[in-house]
Amino acid sequence: MKLYMPTAVFCEKDCVRLHSDELTKLGTKGMIVTGKHSSRFNGSLNNVEDALKSQNIPYIIYDDVEANPSVETVVKASKIAQTEGVDFFIGIGGGSPMDAAKAISLLAKNPDKDSSVLFKNTTLEYYPIAEVPTTSGTGSEVTPYAILTLHEKHTKQSISHEIYPAVALVDYTYLKTAKRSGFINTCVDTLAHLIEAYLNTNANDYNRIYAREGFRLWGSVKNALVPCMNKNENDTESIELTDEEYETFMHASLVAGMAITHTGTSLPHGLSYPITYELGVPHGKAVGIFLPGFLRNYENLSEVHDVLELLGFSSINSFENYIRTIIGSVEIPIEIWETDKKSVLDNPAKLKNYPFEINAEILSTYR
Amino acid sequence: MKLYMPTAVFCEKDCVRLHSDELTKLGTKGMIVTGKHSSRFNGSLNNVEDALKSQNIPYIIYDDVEANPSVETVVKASKIAQTEGVDFFIGIGGGSPMDAAKAISLLAKNPDKDSSVLFKNTTLEYYPIAEVPTTSGTGSEVTPYAILTLHEKHTKQSISHEIYPAVALVDYTYLKTAKRSGFINTCVDTLAHLIEAYLNTNANDYNRIYAREGFRLWGSVKNALVPCMNKNENDTESIELTDEEYETFMHASLVAGMAITHTGTSLPHGLSYPITYELGVPHGKAVGIFLPGFLRNYENLSEVHDVLELLGFSSINSFENYIRTIIGSVEIPIEIWETDKKSVLDNPAKLKNYPFEINAEILSTYR
Ligand SMILES: [Zn+2]
Ligand SMILES: [Zn+2]
Repeated sequence: MKLYMPTAVFCEKDCVRLHSDELTKLGTKGMIVTGKHSSRFNGSLNNVEDALKSQNIPYIIYDDVEANPSVETVVKASKIAQTEGVDFFIGIGGGSPMDAAKAISLLAKNPDKDSSVLFKNTTLEYYPIAEVPTTSGTGSEVTPYAILTLHEKHTKQSISHEIYPAVALVDYTYLKTAKRSGFINTCVDTLAHLIEAYLNTNANDYNRIYAREGFRLWGSVKNALVPCMNKNENDTESIELTDEEYETFMHASLVAGMAITHTGTSLPHGLSYPITYELGVPHGKAVGIFLPGFLRNYENLSEVHDVLELLGFSSINSFENYIRTIIGSVEIPIEIWETDKKSVLDNPAKLKNYPFEINAEILSTYR
Repeated sequence: MKLYMPTAVFCEKDCVRLHSDELTKLGTKGMIVTGKHSSRFNGSLNNVEDALKSQNIPYIIYDDVEANPSVETVVKASKIAQTEGVDFFIGIGGGSPMDAAKAISLLAKNPDKDSSVLFKNTTLEYYPIAEVPTTSGTGSEVTPYAILTLHEKHTKQSISHEIYPAVALVDYTYLKTAKRSGFINTCVDTLAHLIEAYLNTNANDYNRIYAREGFRLWGSVKNALVPCMNKNENDTESIELTDEEYETFMHASLVAGMAITHTGTSLPHGLSYPITYELGVPHGKAVGIFLPGFLRNYENLSEVHDVLELLGFSSINSFENYIRTIIGSVEIPIEIWETDKKSVLDNPAKLKNYPFEINAEILSTYR
């Protein structure tokens, strides 16, 4: 059994400014990898630019990363990085730009290779990466994973390389501008990472440290996600938590990232990718809808009682009610659902973290 | 706040053989750093030699590391390493050889520097290090610390460099040949690391993950250390635990190492070094005698209740009785005790991890 988590994590309010010197260790010219909007809105892009300027580090910005970034996007950015002589990367945002930064770094460092290497089992070098998360969901700032969209396969797929960020600069205050539904979806993604890491063939007493801490943290603030019925209707668009609650969700996201780093994810993630691709359902919600069914599969295991107890739920039913309350449900058309189940059952890589026999009948109970 | 733990940890029975390929990543010629006896007796030296041979990696052995290794020893070994063209190191044993391997690696990599750099705040490179612990105590296999004996100062002191092992190969079966008193002392060292990390100005919700897990593990096997009165007298020399108990103490030692990596140790360790130097008291016992008094200092903090509860003690008194039962006591001559207290109180570095006002009167209650 293995424990490996080489990223240097800095975690506090005003983190980017306080640790701008960490960026000087990464290289001589940076590329900021981000999306068009949220990193401008929540202040993170400004903070990173100020940090780079304060350290006199030249940089360019690539802000064309879409939600669920495609192979085409990372190829385009890597070519720009090569032309501009970039030798380190800073991903800012949710999972999309942070994952993209990893894939771009790999391609940029290997100019003689084309994009097919992304999904080949070879050992390649990559440039150092700093990640600045602005959502409390993916944990990508500490995981070696990068998920890209494959348009020709109509789904999302993890690249074949383990790319560990050198530094994670984590400031929970970026969460404060999030909209209610987006925030909830990312928090549910965290919850899925914790559950799928804990109930996993690769889990052991040792790496469950992270998941247990995550359950404890997540459970302590879970009620903050339940809509307040006494407020007026407009409140459903925005969400307002205390600083401590935001910070707790951010920490939960981080330890959940550490948890899946040692185990990988499991069936809810495997089932979610086509749902996101075909129906445009956000990642956290697409994963979350499968969590109650997944827990029911394990119903008689003591580990499920651990999960519920640490989170503060009295039963799987009360867990399910809670999930439905905060994320609602998704109508999955029957043909998409059948293809989805088949693609998971036909793919040994998607089943390998699941310890029991699985078949279409059992999977059907997840919907 | 920061979390950084870059060592790749492999932890299982037969670990060295199963992960011999990890050694090929470290360099082209190795130096095994160990003591004269225990690594031969418990099989670890044999396993490492077999692993190196199976990977066709040339190596030399430096087996002159004494308990509480001196600066002279690491200088001598580093000169041999330079002459022999060694470019990576493997520490095998308890804290002494593992710490020595770190210091030797630093000196070997910097042939133009003399031993005074060990205690200077400069940034220096070092050769990669693998650590193979054979005791469940120091956690040195995952910490950046190395403690050396300074004969001219009549004490032990941490070197000024953070040297992280590249790999830790952890096999609990090496514990099986340990003698009762030695085994207990190292386990008490683990306990001290957990307590001093948890009650520490650098502790926070985040890095307390490791300490909490350690308390849980340690507490679950603590009764295995209590002498069994029904056995005959000869049994006091040997100790026999189940495989699971040995494994649990080994894991506790590892997570305790991770815990102090993020916080440093505190007053019990600070007070212990002269006791070890002047009276020859083993490290774990020299630290352990100060733990009950240290906990009493914090008596009204909720963290102390956490510690006792996770370990499974009903009160500080029952904790104290337990510690006295397993390690006994130490007669500290008054002049040594006065000098010891004074050296701690005069040294801001030794007090900085302690959150309260401290003075000679309070320290006196520790003895
Ligand atoms: Zn996810
Ligand atoms: Zn110690």
